[in-house]
Amino acid sequence: MQALWLENNQLILREDIPIPVPAEGEALVRVNLAGICATDLELVKGYYPYRGILGHEFVGEIVQAVDAPEREGERVVGEINLACGVCRACLNGQAKHCERRSVLGILNQNGAFAEYLCLPLKNLISISPSIPDEIAVFTEPLAAALEIQAQVTIPPTARILVVGAGRLGQLIAQTLVLTGAHLQVVARHEKQRQLLDKRQIEWIDENAVPTNIFDLVVEATGSINGFTLARTAVRPCGKIILKSTYKGDISINFSALVVDEITLIGSRCGPFAPALRLLENRLIDPTLLIDTCFSLDNALQAFERAKQPGILKVLLSFGN
Amino acid sequence: MQALWLENNQLILREDIPIPVPAEGEALVRVNLAGICATDLELVKGYYPYRGILGHEFVGEIVQAVDAPEREGERVVGEINLACGVCRACLNGQAKHCERRSVLGILNQNGAFAEYLCLPLKNLISISPSIPDEIAVFTEPLAAALEIQAQVTIPPTARILVVGAGRLGQLIAQTLVLTGAHLQVVARHEKQRQLLDKRQIEWIDENAVPTNIFDLVVEATGSINGFTLARTAVRPCGKIILKSTYKGDISINFSALVVDEITLIGSRCGPFAPALRLLENRLIDPTLLIDTCFSLDNALQAFERAKQPGILKVLLSFGN
Repeated sequence: MQALWLENNQLILREDIPIPVPAEGEALVRVNLAGICATDLELVKGYYPYRGILGHEFVGEIVQAVDAPEREGERVVGEINLACGVCRACLNGQAKHCERRSVLGILNQNGAFAEYLCLPLKNLISISPSIPDEIAVFTEPLAAALEIQAQVTIPPTARILVVGAGRLGQLIAQTLVLTGAHLQVVARHEKQRQLLDKRQIEWIDENAVPTNIFDLVVEATGSINGFTLARTAVRPCGKIILKSTYKGDISINFSALVVDEITLIGSRCGPFAPALRLLENRLIDPTLLIDTCFSLDNALQAFERAKQPGILKVLLSFGN
Repeated sequence: MQALWLENNQLILREDIPIPVPAEGEALVRVNLAGICATDLELVKGYYPYRGILGHEFVGEIVQAVDAPEREGERVVGEINLACGVCRACLNGQAKHCERRSVLGILNQNGAFAEYLCLPLKNLISISPSIPDEIAVFTEPLAAALEIQAQVTIPPTARILVVGAGRLGQLIAQTLVLTGAHLQVVARHEKQRQLLDKRQIEWIDENAVPTNIFDLVVEATGSINGFTLARTAVRPCGKIILKSTYKGDISINFSALVVDEITLIGSRCGPFAPALRLLENRLIDPTLLIDTCFSLDNALQAFERAKQPGILKVLLSFGN
């Protein structure tokens, strides 16, 4: 089959990859549509060692499920963490933190930029026909956005700042505006601002952010500057959600965190079920984020496009 | 009056300080007993600029209260943050984070290592005669310990590690053991271990701490090594409470915080009322921590003693 392979920081479009064979409890999924995310771009830059097929945002169809043939034909999205089920984290109900996990397209598990992928049946969630592929493909990043609401209580009286209006920042903003809280989003690019305007979400220039006032700040840039801005904006006893990965270490003043009683919260993958509910009832419109859709044949161009500044979601279509 | 004065990193025992005159809403308090804490030692080292009388842990007696003469004669402890009452933090109910605050013996307000001090009447809390001075003098640090329970929910099923068994670590451990949680305390010095044994609190050597397992880790050493140990010990989705101030910046791997979804919580001053309840019903025994009690005449020797490694609480008595 055709697949986009990463090896030694090089992307290679290969035609010679065998169609994978599902293990016990797994299903074979034919991929319809997949999305390129910041993590994919980072993997290509070599932030984490990974060799294999990239891609973890997808929608597809179960074509083979030996243990549950009744599920063949289901249109599905997939939770990306493959858990062992028996380690402390798994037994603690935290399968996504499984000590022996593999992660679709990220860690020891071939990903979604291919005609077919395999995932455990328990990871595959059937989706309503009312959710078209170009919406369903956003389930994974929307779930990651909703992890914030899974981690912290957000009262409707809260004052919230989202730093960064890229792919993830836009989805986070669309979910946070649903809380009724006073939300502002730091957006640099004109395109990002227009998208926020379309959802009646207030954007703000990074030089106009007030200091020491926000109850909650979501850092979605993955940059030291973004964190510095978040730290300046948050009020005493406020919370900063770290929603991106960062290059290398960041040096911070711990004493100031203690004196101001600031909380920093790392935030990663989130729950699929609420993401699908919000997509189905159209309370979130991720299609605004779509920049271009390339066929898998043109996957290398798609990556070139995705890494330009200010570009939001680039999709890979498998032309089924 | 006699007072211990800090100027240019030099402690000076002065006899020439005038007895302070209480402002409107303030009271004059004669100090009975005061405690030397790590913050005092840091102020002497010059971590924060401060010029004036040191000291913020005390018990004393109101000797003059023009606006509330009925309170004269009350034995009191005092909240150390002097708030303006009208800034955003104050109006938000967070007086201790007042943007214009002064802090007793720490910031723009002469402190408790003196025969007399002034504080607003609203900061002075009357204490029961059943709490002797040598217990009451621990109210402020015990309140700081209890700030942890004010910030995070601690279920009795939690597994908790306290890193550091010094002055504050011992008080924190004594409060956390009351939750019924599985508590272990990293203690280096034999004396620290003996004190924990007296309270049936389990101590552990720093080299024997298990990794990735604790729901909550309290970092009470103020050192990079302490934080590194806390980070290793905490489980995915766990919390680290930062309970000390730190010299300079600390460099941390933000991506790992995000991937493991760790929460860092800065924690400073805490609530006096529950501290007094626990002291009154003897559920906490801070007197175990008392190393020596010096008279104010010997305050310089008291500081020499307090800064030796492994020494717990050194008190200054005012011989009333």
